[in-house]
Amino acid sequence: MAKNDDTFFSSSARDLLAAREGFVLADLDPESTPGVAASKKQGEKALAAGAPVLDDLQVRLHANSLSGDSRSVLLVLQAMDSAGKGGIVSHVIGTVDPEGVAHTSFKKPTPEELSHDFLWRIRNALPKAGQIGVFDRSHYEDVLIARVRELATPDVIEHRYELINEFERQVTESGTTIVKVMLHISSDEQKARLGARLEREDKYWKYNPGDVDERLLWPAYQEAYQLAIQNTSTEIAPWFVVPANHKWYARAAVQQLLIETMSAFGQGWPPADYDIEVEKARLAAS
Amino acid sequence: MAKNDDTFFSSSARDLLAAREGFVLADLDPESTPGVAASKKQGEKALAAGAPVLDDLQVRLHANSLSGDSRSVLLVLQAMDSAGKGGIVSHVIGTVDPEGVAHTSFKKPTPEELSHDFLWRIRNALPKAGQIGVFDRSHYEDVLIARVRELATPDVIEHRYELINEFERQVTESGTTIVKVMLHISSDEQKARLGARLEREDKYWKYNPGDVDERLLWPAYQEAYQLAIQNTSTEIAPWFVVPANHKWYARAAVQQLLIETMSAFGQGWPPADYDIEVEKARLAAS
Repeated sequence: MAKNDDTFFSSSARDLLAAREGFVLADLDPESTPGVAASKKQGEKALAAGAPVLDDLQVRLHANSLSGDSRSVLLVLQAMDSAGKGGIVSHVIGTVDPEGVAHTSFKKPTPEELSHDFLWRIRNALPKAGQIGVFDRSHYEDVLIARVRELATPDVIEHRYELINEFERQVTESGTTIVKVMLHISSDEQKARLGARLEREDKYWKYNPGDVDERLLWPAYQEAYQLAIQNTSTEIAPWFVVPANHKWYARAAVQQLLIETMSAFGQGWPPADYDIEVEKARLAAS
Repeated sequence: MAKNDDTFFSSSARDLLAAREGFVLADLDPESTPGVAASKKQGEKALAAGAPVLDDLQVRLHANSLSGDSRSVLLVLQAMDSAGKGGIVSHVIGTVDPEGVAHTSFKKPTPEELSHDFLWRIRNALPKAGQIGVFDRSHYEDVLIARVRELATPDVIEHRYELINEFERQVTESGTTIVKVMLHISSDEQKARLGARLEREDKYWKYNPGDVDERLLWPAYQEAYQLAIQNTSTEIAPWFVVPANHKWYARAAVQQLLIETMSAFGQGWPPADYDIEVEKARLAAS
């Protein structure tokens, strides 16, 4: 099933990319391609080869959910602007049947959202059994921008790490496997990508002057990510930090993380919950 | 833009497939391929060629929504079991960026849904500006199965046609263009497709004994569709009835309906709402 294992990644992407005890974000080179010695072309080929594998795993997830299996998957995507979250959604998630995907973009909280605790809108968007949920930004904004922009006191931020870990434990126990991904780009790479949006008429809409405001706080964001990762990378919901200066690598890596995670479910096809011969006869007579 | 026009469909798919005054469902051959004299292979090629066109139109829809354009699209899919709604979702909608799609399957109403008027759950699932919404089944179940299974009195059903037309008028006025599609298969084709699900272990989960119960009411459903179509095919939200015994035709036709509909919006790229040179300088200095 996880056919990329042997042919593209030198070992398990989950092993290669998990942020473990002692992880230091600043030590991870955004240009690197852990576990892969290949070209962009080979990377794109591996991505194309993985698409039907991931699609098959999602169909199995869905089929089993109809027989009462409560499992689902939640891909959490966090990154600096232009790091490639959108590309993961279109190129990795885009190959899965839309019926099996629940995608949510979290923006600046609305007044209604702010009137609840920070996990309220997150709970409301959790995937159903059988689905792959995708969060483009997430509850982690409440310990990232909230920390950098001082939208909450340090004590509150500290407490949120605990609340998040407890929340993710509950979510996991109810059947949702969480795959948390930070796409890690360099400051120079971001500069180049934002600059490219200012060069093409069909990309102007992707540029927001606020992106530069956030960019000026780059070191503070890197620190906030470091703290978020070290405080919330747990056994049941580890962070995977994916070097993302090479888009082909980041896409292949996230696809492989999903394939490995879902392959481990070992889901076969659910048996018929009706009598096949009886149904054949009823259908023939209809 | 609507490049399929000249090369695949002999004329506008909207013109070819709209249910007009005097439309008779029973007169439309599910085996037919209106406007197309082509093979399955050519149909699949046309579908592949249309995918980037539809994707581009959705990106434009999204980009313009960020500048305040309220437009969205709602594809309503109705059909007898196994007619190919799922295939439309995976093969036509599946080529659009998941971020731009809002997909909802309407099942048997929950107690909460039943405690509201029949349009309540529909309103809650309408696409946002910039999105293509997809309804797999819809408010039309309330005049289809509701009529056939006598879940409501004839008077109530009659009144619902009016409520639906009024609702769709409001939705359209608020910026959502509705594309209502009935996939039209023959009884024999359904029998073959349901039968195929009983032959393969990986398809058992797609079969439901209730499908044969509904199948036994085939003539009543055809009558209910005829009435629904003639009562709710309006100027602003016409029904398109797509012969669907040939999956390749139905998929190419629905894609083409969306392409024609969205091409007519004539959306260019929104201009930058910031000073490009100022931003280049800010970025360079960052």
